[in-house]
Amino acid sequence: MSSNFGKCLEISIFGESHGPLVGVCIDGLPAGCDIDMEYINKQMSRRAPGNDPGATQRKEPDIPVIKTGSYRGKTTGAPLMAVIENTNTRSADYENIELVPRPSHSDYPAYVKYGGHNDIRGGGHFSGRLTACMVFAGALCRSILKDYDITIGGHVYSIGNAYDDKFDMCEVDKDLLNRLSSEYFAVINENIKVDMQDIIMLAKKDCNSVGGIIEVAVCGMPAGVGFPMFRGVENVISQAVFAVPAVKGIEFGAGFDFSCMTGVSGNDQYKMSCNTVKTMTNNNGGILGGITTGMPIVFRAAVKPTSSIATEQRSVNLATMQNTKLVVKGRHDPCIVPRALPVIESAAAIAVFDLLLENGTIKRC
Amino acid sequence: MSSNFGKCLEISIFGESHGPLVGVCIDGLPAGCDIDMEYINKQMSRRAPGNDPGATQRKEPDIPVIKTGSYRGKTTGAPLMAVIENTNTRSADYENIELVPRPSHSDYPAYVKYGGHNDIRGGGHFSGRLTACMVFAGALCRSILKDYDITIGGHVYSIGNAYDDKFDMCEVDKDLLNRLSSEYFAVINENIKVDMQDIIMLAKKDCNSVGGIIEVAVCGMPAGVGFPMFRGVENVISQAVFAVPAVKGIEFGAGFDFSCMTGVSGNDQYKMSCNTVKTMTNNNGGILGGITTGMPIVFRAAVKPTSSIATEQRSVNLATMQNTKLVVKGRHDPCIVPRALPVIESAAAIAVFDLLLENGTIKRC
Amino acid sequence: MSSNFGKCLEISIFGESHGPLVGVCIDGLPAGCDIDMEYINKQMSRRAPGNDPGATQRKEPDIPVIKTGSYRGKTTGAPLMAVIENTNTRSADYENIELVPRPSHSDYPAYVKYGGHNDIRGGGHFSGRLTACMVFAGALCRSILKDYDITIGGHVYSIGNAYDDKFDMCEVDKDLLNRLSSEYFAVINENIKVDMQDIIMLAKKDCNSVGGIIEVAVCGMPAGVGFPMFRGVENVISQAVFAVPAVKGIEFGAGFDFSCMTGVSGNDQYKMSCNTVKTMTNNNGGILGGITTGMPIVFRAAVKPTSSIATEQRSVNLATMQNTKLVVKGRHDPCIVPRALPVIESAAAIAVFDLLLENGTIKRC
Amino acid sequence: MSSNFGKCLEISIFGESHGPLVGVCIDGLPAGCDIDMEYINKQMSRRAPGNDPGATQRKEPDIPVIKTGSYRGKTTGAPLMAVIENTNTRSADYENIELVPRPSHSDYPAYVKYGGHNDIRGGGHFSGRLTACMVFAGALCRSILKDYDITIGGHVYSIGNAYDDKFDMCEVDKDLLNRLSSEYFAVINENIKVDMQDIIMLAKKDCNSVGGIIEVAVCGMPAGVGFPMFRGVENVISQAVFAVPAVKGIEFGAGFDFSCMTGVSGNDQYKMSCNTVKTMTNNNGGILGGITTGMPIVFRAAVKPTSSIATEQRSVNLATMQNTKLVVKGRHDPCIVPRALPVIESAAAIAVFDLLLENGTIKRC
Repeated sequence: MSSNFGKCLEISIFGESHGPLVGVCIDGLPAGCDIDMEYINKQMSRRAPGNDPGATQRKEPDIPVIKTGSYRGKTTGAPLMAVIENTNTRSADYENIELVPRPSHSDYPAYVKYGGHNDIRGGGHFSGRLTACMVFAGALCRSILKDYDITIGGHVYSIGNAYDDKFDMCEVDKDLLNRLSSEYFAVINENIKVDMQDIIMLAKKDCNSVGGIIEVAVCGMPAGVGFPMFRGVENVISQAVFAVPAVKGIEFGAGFDFSCMTGVSGNDQYKMSCNTVKTMTNNNGGILGGITTGMPIVFRAAVKPTSSIATEQRSVNLATMQNTKLVVKGRHDPCIVPRALPVIESAAAIAVFDLLLENGTIKRC
Repeated sequence: MSSNFGKCLEISIFGESHGPLVGVCIDGLPAGCDIDMEYINKQMSRRAPGNDPGATQRKEPDIPVIKTGSYRGKTTGAPLMAVIENTNTRSADYENIELVPRPSHSDYPAYVKYGGHNDIRGGGHFSGRLTACMVFAGALCRSILKDYDITIGGHVYSIGNAYDDKFDMCEVDKDLLNRLSSEYFAVINENIKVDMQDIIMLAKKDCNSVGGIIEVAVCGMPAGVGFPMFRGVENVISQAVFAVPAVKGIEFGAGFDFSCMTGVSGNDQYKMSCNTVKTMTNNNGGILGGITTGMPIVFRAAVKPTSSIATEQRSVNLATMQNTKLVVKGRHDPCIVPRALPVIESAAAIAVFDLLLENGTIKRC
Repeated sequence: MSSNFGKCLEISIFGESHGPLVGVCIDGLPAGCDIDMEYINKQMSRRAPGNDPGATQRKEPDIPVIKTGSYRGKTTGAPLMAVIENTNTRSADYENIELVPRPSHSDYPAYVKYGGHNDIRGGGHFSGRLTACMVFAGALCRSILKDYDITIGGHVYSIGNAYDDKFDMCEVDKDLLNRLSSEYFAVINENIKVDMQDIIMLAKKDCNSVGGIIEVAVCGMPAGVGFPMFRGVENVISQAVFAVPAVKGIEFGAGFDFSCMTGVSGNDQYKMSCNTVKTMTNNNGGILGGITTGMPIVFRAAVKPTSSIATEQRSVNLATMQNTKLVVKGRHDPCIVPRALPVIESAAAIAVFDLLLENGTIKRC
Repeated sequence: MSSNFGKCLEISIFGESHGPLVGVCIDGLPAGCDIDMEYINKQMSRRAPGNDPGATQRKEPDIPVIKTGSYRGKTTGAPLMAVIENTNTRSADYENIELVPRPSHSDYPAYVKYGGHNDIRGGGHFSGRLTACMVFAGALCRSILKDYDITIGGHVYSIGNAYDDKFDMCEVDKDLLNRLSSEYFAVINENIKVDMQDIIMLAKKDCNSVGGIIEVAVCGMPAGVGFPMFRGVENVISQAVFAVPAVKGIEFGAGFDFSCMTGVSGNDQYKMSCNTVKTMTNNNGGILGGITTGMPIVFRAAVKPTSSIATEQRSVNLATMQNTKLVVKGRHDPCIVPRALPVIESAAAIAVFDLLLENGTIKRC
């Protein structure tokens, strides 16, 4: 397995949905940084269950407790480890899935990989609950990135066929990002949120689920961060973002729309602006040749519909190797997109933090 | 910088467009594998310039020469290093860009990053020419993967608004992939190729360029390969694919289309088929929880229009910090998509090879 | 910082001497391995304080509690995280050292590195207490290695100028290693232990401390494990062993004695023995070119005297930058060598486990 | 295999003794550094064969040619790749060893590891010739380290039982190190060199070989470099040094002598000196808790006698699995220690360079 991320910021995530806890160990943080628990808890609450009527009814507090690497309210430079206890688990809901894999979950490939030894209760180590650890790590990074005037935020760009406005990729600024990243179910255009919520409630009523798209921006990145080829900003962000369960696609700047653009319409031409080199458009999403241009980084991630649905589905019994049917029990969000938003922001945060450390922009001490 | 890829298969790429050579060092190859130079050269030729009327007129032979790690026609287990000499360079074409960055190229961020010390001739280490090294490494991996009955192939899914058929994600098989991966400018539906070529020729006539989408499939992967979270198959493939210049997005299976799907329509339900567990659909592109399901891996990559266009563009002079204009000289493809196809197939090959080594499926010796 | 070890077995250690806990996260363990807590606790007790009259009087239970990665008494393949609570800390003992670094401790370089933000109580993350985590990880590896008939054990080779017998490097076998690794303060020749203990008690009486040498062997390693150059067995074991505080040297086989040997006397000539290739001597300690020969791996590690002594020493005040004097308070072992023995065995265990995983000898699942 | 070293400075070494070339790719060098070929070639010549009467009679020029990563005499920030051609090989000398492994060489474990597919001519990738690549990389690093006032040098501390003076570990300075590192077969006390040479010539006459000890110092390292536990300075230097064939032991500062010292005699007490914190002794060799103290780094490496000797030795035939005898042909140094000296200095150079990059002391650009 490889639940570790990062080259200079090394993040190790551990835990299972129905074990005693989930947690994260973060090595490489600079010493002497303030730990803003209020900010961290705010971000944790954006991901925590129970925020809205459509979402899962599990009310887990999701309180991270820092166990190591902190002294007198600051980072020490030693590995910082935090745990989040699991307090509200109903393992009985998972008794029927041990040998009957839930469609579009990791159950079947994990069964093959681990020979049936993995903990399948609640998805075990594959559970979305592990993303709480990413939010903790991301929030800690984000609170330190503020000192470098780097801001990360995102919004629910779409749920089904209801679309929010896109970011203005040249003009997106930290005020907007700060507003968005302080909300649950953040959107740019509030009018669209009702439509999105209706789509979600309808899916819930139908024992169904829906997907969507999340758009994230990073403002304040200096030009020159990132590396060519395999350690480019896109490579590192995408490695982090695909760790979020349900993400099946990522695009930067114009992304897939580039396929219908031309060099004349798509190239980002340069201009001087307040003695700074800027691009007149930002179709490349702030990244050229893997390296930041100084323009905002903008990317979108596709999130698939929640795999757990209350509708009967076809599956197989791995013991008898016979076809069978399955109804997934338990409490599940009909749409994971709003809760996935702070997770994907966090994935972006740990990715850029790692690159900024490697680049020397963030000092070790 | 970080022109190195892989955990168990360690690939180091070096070279510049206008230096004496580009090359690659590959550590971690099993010992005793036949080196099929005919197959490798065939793949090299699919990427090499000069294949079609719309493409660049540079005729570089692109002959890789293996210098180390090979003995009696087989791999030895020692690092295998190969070089491709640069024989046809016209550096004078780049004299005017040293201080005037070409839009949508890496020139500006690289200038900031390297303080002007990087070799800008032909894009230097950022040049598309470096992808020849990826094709070499990928072709070598692919020829070894054949022994494991794993086949990789792809096609030009779109150029502008001309679309080929998509892969049937459940049924795509090695016969189709072998056919596609033996051609230049491979498409599933030959009828569409004329439209694509017309779009490219029109762009060329207009001193413009066009983008497109490439679709790649990997058949024969056993279930259980890949790791949760940060070393999932999607994470590793995307890390490799974003190393290809001009790629700005990637999606697996249904990808961004998932955003408009529901759990009922999008979940891949299981069935027994010839005593094997299969999914009835393959919207997840052969990957769940980062781990292969045994179904074909399918992904798509968005390729932006060639940045180098002969149309005048706005830029800035980095010495005077004044606005200026620029016409990019040199010989450039109006559409890079057909030549990028074998590169992206190769990126997929090195990614799955690395995972198969780590998984123990491919034996070291 | 970098409290992480390993390529295929990834170990992350966290915690401080005077924080709530120390612990370790281990990623890469195969799924389905029995977790032999009795064996693990036995190894923990060999390192725990309070074993003998000369040693520190802190009686910490050192009970590791597995929090994740275990299900039904077996490994799941997910990261296994265990913590050991700190129950018996007297931080007041460290109040006078914050600005007056203790000689031969990490206090001064850590102060420079972390700008004074590190937790200095009890040495913080640099404390010998962190080695409890290495013993836990090592014991878990060792219990799995038994299934591969690989046995690790060691003995206190010297304390001051009292020397035990050396291993017979050709004949050392698992019976001897099992005997040694079940004891506290293991020696081959029991007669010498009294001399060693006398040296330690004398040092204690004098408010002084003494060093020594530890010798460790690994039996049962198949030939062909390890890699040339930077991933050889010596490289990986030494990287792990130098993580143990107080270790200042390591040698394999004849080690430094090789400097006075010749090719004729030092070369390990081959012979057939029971249809197996063996060497007639084992001056190379079971490793040639970084790769195992199938003979026992043997190495020795030099351990410096405990840095904390009750004798007054000269130091400086880092606030005033004036010379000053210091008496180190607290409870300290006059000789750390007996307790370091299971730690260094554990370092060897995690090193060979990592190499065996990479080699494919140990299967992931 | 793993012929790659480093975290922030990534070095990949390739080649075989009897192939066309050996070489190295170095990623992570800062951009804009002068490449001092005169200095590099001077260091290459210290390792090259043919320097003295006792040494091998192969006269290979060992001229490194930089192929990539350099522009206008400076580093560009892109991977710098250099090759050294093999011009003087006599493969016939190795015909008899293919199935009869040479004692104390890697032949046998490599045969097992690679199933007989490795290139055994001249030791293939295990050959001492590969160390030319380490010297190139080390010399390049050393020439850049000069800008940071960091100097590395060493001497032949012993050949057999002839011992040079040891470094004064507190007072060793760059003048001495510069003198030593400009010589072949450097010693502190010139009087002892004759004895050493006599020992070597006697071994040569007897168809035998001898070992020795090399001592290296690094001056000018700032305090605070390195990391606790697995990325300490000792860990990283030892990982690099054990890549040098024939090294079987390493010790830092007082090293193995610590085993007979006490806390009172061995601890390095602090004092102020010219407003700088210094230690009164330097038994810890400039490293505490894995981190530099600002005092000189001093270590010693044990080098075994040349394995290739012209005396008949016992071996086995791997095809027939019968005992046999072997006389190693070819031209071999009766003592490798003088030529190993610049290699071990180079290993130290790449290790500290990597740590200084990670620490942020050396800027990327």
